[in-house]
Amino acid sequence: MNIKLIVEFDGTNYCGWQRQQNACSVQQILESAIEKATGEKCETLGCSRTDAGVHAKGYCANFHTLSSIPPQNMKFAINTKLPSDIVVINSEEADDNFHARYNSKGKTYSYTLFYGDYEKAILRNYIYSYRHNLNVELMKEAAKYFIGAHDFTAFKSKGSSAKSSVRTVTQFDIVQSPDEKIIKFYISANGFLYNMARIMIGTVLEVGREKIEPSYIKKIIQEKNRKNAGKTAPAKGLCLEKVFY
Amino acid sequence: MNIKLIVEFDGTNYCGWQRQQNACSVQQILESAIEKATGEKCETLGCSRTDAGVHAKGYCANFHTLSSIPPQNMKFAINTKLPSDIVVINSEEADDNFHARYNSKGKTYSYTLFYGDYEKAILRNYIYSYRHNLNVELMKEAAKYFIGAHDFTAFKSKGSSAKSSVRTVTQFDIVQSPDEKIIKFYISANGFLYNMARIMIGTVLEVGREKIEPSYIKKIIQEKNRKNAGKTAPAKGLCLEKVFY
Repeated sequence: MNIKLIVEFDGTNYCGWQRQQNACSVQQILESAIEKATGEKCETLGCSRTDAGVHAKGYCANFHTLSSIPPQNMKFAINTKLPSDIVVINSEEADDNFHARYNSKGKTYSYTLFYGDYEKAILRNYIYSYRHNLNVELMKEAAKYFIGAHDFTAFKSKGSSAKSSVRTVTQFDIVQSPDEKIIKFYISANGFLYNMARIMIGTVLEVGREKIEPSYIKKIIQEKNRKNAGKTAPAKGLCLEKVFY
Repeated sequence: MNIKLIVEFDGTNYCGWQRQQNACSVQQILESAIEKATGEKCETLGCSRTDAGVHAKGYCANFHTLSSIPPQNMKFAINTKLPSDIVVINSEEADDNFHARYNSKGKTYSYTLFYGDYEKAILRNYIYSYRHNLNVELMKEAAKYFIGAHDFTAFKSKGSSAKSSVRTVTQFDIVQSPDEKIIKFYISANGFLYNMARIMIGTVLEVGREKIEPSYIKKIIQEKNRKNAGKTAPAKGLCLEKVFY
């Protein structure tokens, strides 16, 4: 049976999804819990790598098993073996050839920023505290330039293994809380290059600080030079909200 | 000079505000930071005790100092000496006889509940994960019975040192998120007895589960017997939002 899992995790204490030597990954902990629950050693296939400190509300992974645990109950069986910072929120049977990474049609990430003159204590592992003044209207204008199919070479970090750098961004929304202190970003695309979401955020923040104009985003995309884009925003503000199939 | 501080803290790793033997309190850490910042040993006066695991976005404390640090800058000086789970969000000079506890006119607490069939991984230190079905409309009806001046003896834990158990509740709002999974409670009163907010939440949850009717709240208040009220809801969902002066 091919089991599809939706996983929520707090990335604070992990090196990311992907199994690594000498570091604790979400994949390693999840596979160990599956082994304890089913009695089988299973390899999980994840929808993507994630960076250390990045969170997920809707990470998707699948694995093949001979276990007789009903697919819908698999989540309860696995959850009893997981630490409190990883939880399976759904489990179901998938087509035998379903692959969490290859079948992904797109993803939505959120990014959360706190905007004030101090570092938040509450939610500090989930929020990037930002001390500079921000012009949110300009940021919203800048966000529009990302929408569509573009070569995002300027928005990927070194080490990206993707063959093509063309991705289609379908959503880049910026929502401010009523007290204006929390800014949430929602970015959806058919795929994301290495650090792409965090570099997009970092660049839009440069617009918010009025260091570059919104329309300059167009030029950054065209020139395909990472140096023109902004800093990679810190991992802890980022959360994989949903994977589309 | 009498300095008034507004403090945000993540209560997860503390025994509460109040200094204790053999346990780490917010007060102890804050006083140690003030000493490092000002060079003086100062006693802080807090607006209330808080329980282990309870959070605060707007805790108020004051202290007297001979330091020449301008009151508005005191927060920056103290924050450099604090760990990341405690932060001073405002500092200002107060009247010489201002006392954070005696001058308090009221407080607002929030309580956050996640409503689903698994324990949240993200925000798990700030949210009470609740697995039972809840009738939110009945809970809203129940909340209304708390409004006004009542003897809240049935809603206080043993060990309360308050002389009178009469308190005036001015707000008890229940707000559900658009996806219905997060329920936030806001309770304001001129003062709270020991565990009063958490017992009020626990009792309203009994109404939500349809174990008791909304109007039964009236009877619980009248009979002044702690056994009639619900369980004390877990500390981690509770947050002191604001103190009124």
